[in-house]
Amino acid sequence: MTRRLLLVSNSTLHGGGGYLGHCQQQIQDFFGEQVKRILFVPYALHDRDGYAKTARDKLQSLGYEVDSIHEASDPVEAVRMAQGIFIGGGNTFRLLKALYDNKVVSEIQKRVLKDGIPFMGSSAGTNVATVSINTTNDMPIVYPPTFAALGLVPFNINPHYLDADPNSTHMGETREQRIKQFHEESDTPSVLGLREGCMLLVEGDKATLLGSTKARLFTRGKPAAEYEPGSDMSFLLTEGE
Amino acid sequence: MTRRLLLVSNSTLHGGGGYLGHCQQQIQDFFGEQVKRILFVPYALHDRDGYAKTARDKLQSLGYEVDSIHEASDPVEAVRMAQGIFIGGGNTFRLLKALYDNKVVSEIQKRVLKDGIPFMGSSAGTNVATVSINTTNDMPIVYPPTFAALGLVPFNINPHYLDADPNSTHMGETREQRIKQFHEESDTPSVLGLREGCMLLVEGDKATLLGSTKARLFTRGKPAAEYEPGSDMSFLLTEGE
Repeated sequence: MTRRLLLVSNSTLHGGGGYLGHCQQQIQDFFGEQVKRILFVPYALHDRDGYAKTARDKLQSLGYEVDSIHEASDPVEAVRMAQGIFIGGGNTFRLLKALYDNKVVSEIQKRVLKDGIPFMGSSAGTNVATVSINTTNDMPIVYPPTFAALGLVPFNINPHYLDADPNSTHMGETREQRIKQFHEESDTPSVLGLREGCMLLVEGDKATLLGSTKARLFTRGKPAAEYEPGSDMSFLLTEGE
Repeated sequence: MTRRLLLVSNSTLHGGGGYLGHCQQQIQDFFGEQVKRILFVPYALHDRDGYAKTARDKLQSLGYEVDSIHEASDPVEAVRMAQGIFIGGGNTFRLLKALYDNKVVSEIQKRVLKDGIPFMGSSAGTNVATVSINTTNDMPIVYPPTFAALGLVPFNINPHYLDADPNSTHMGETREQRIKQFHEESDTPSVLGLREGCMLLVEGDKATLLGSTKARLFTRGKPAAEYEPGSDMSFLLTEGE
């Protein structure tokens, strides 16, 4: 499989140099010099114009021109012509609904999985790259036609993964408890919790953790496990086969 | 309208005397001495037997017998015969899906809004009492047929409402930001953020805040507003009319 994915936990890291600052080296390594233009998908935020400007300013400073899909007269054609895709973060429900409303789901799958164009996601954009959005942290502000997502990898991700605060008096479920509830319901065996500062690089059948923080893997029926930056996570790509 | 509702933010409060401890006086005032048996709805948790035992133990100590709807051969008939209903917390998506799967939505609406039997909800059980579950905090572990809920009141509630931590370095959206995102999308004008320890009593057309903590009200196009325990919130019941 030719897929190339950079799945980032979060676009802005505390103390990390602003929007996409903490992962700009990985972005340049990932898109490289062959990609000249990146198709940006701003559907996760309400202000698409403002969001496109933010992404364009940053990616131009890294040497890439940006087309925003919301400015295209035909979004499917925009995907068909794209050299690379970046789906930004925001609200995952709004994002997934807009991907279906604009009928670009199957074309993105084809371009990434068959044609091998590079795909980057951040936060909600990372959620929609996985099997489903069942492990998003977001508020369900709109109702998408399904929770099934792009399925570019055969597992789920929980971005912005957060360890429980032992001093908290708040009684809402911890993130780990929520993911356990997901495992009570779903057949998807694994959920990769990407802490802020962490990202997953997928090149074909090889997956590697990058960034400055560890990831926590939740696999049904197994104890949760910690993985350091640099860890080989390729085993996740053959799950369910 | 004869409706009688006790909508509690959370079932267990830190330092509040265990399950339903912080609101047991309000529960007894609400169900009173006429109600002898309460129909419990444990659908929000995976372990329905265990959950029914927890609720039964607590409510029996307050003088009420408990029938759990999951033990009934006909859930709709169980609602039809109920003297009072209590929907417990857990995962809101799982709860709403089970209410539809068991076809009890319209019967609960009829019993509460027409027959006037008392309805208590806690956390997820409070979410499903409102217009929709669009303002739940829970992880979307299952896909319900709609986000529309029981509609016993014409506004939404955010239970376990949490103020932003000014010292946090986590970059996920604050609760207030999430509710603002909801207002970018929905026609429902108001979202009442019930902090843990807070609850809303509705008696016909009168609504009153009870408990030990303040609530924060988010109305589209207005600044957020704080309300003390004891505040008259009846104005919320005529919204959208």
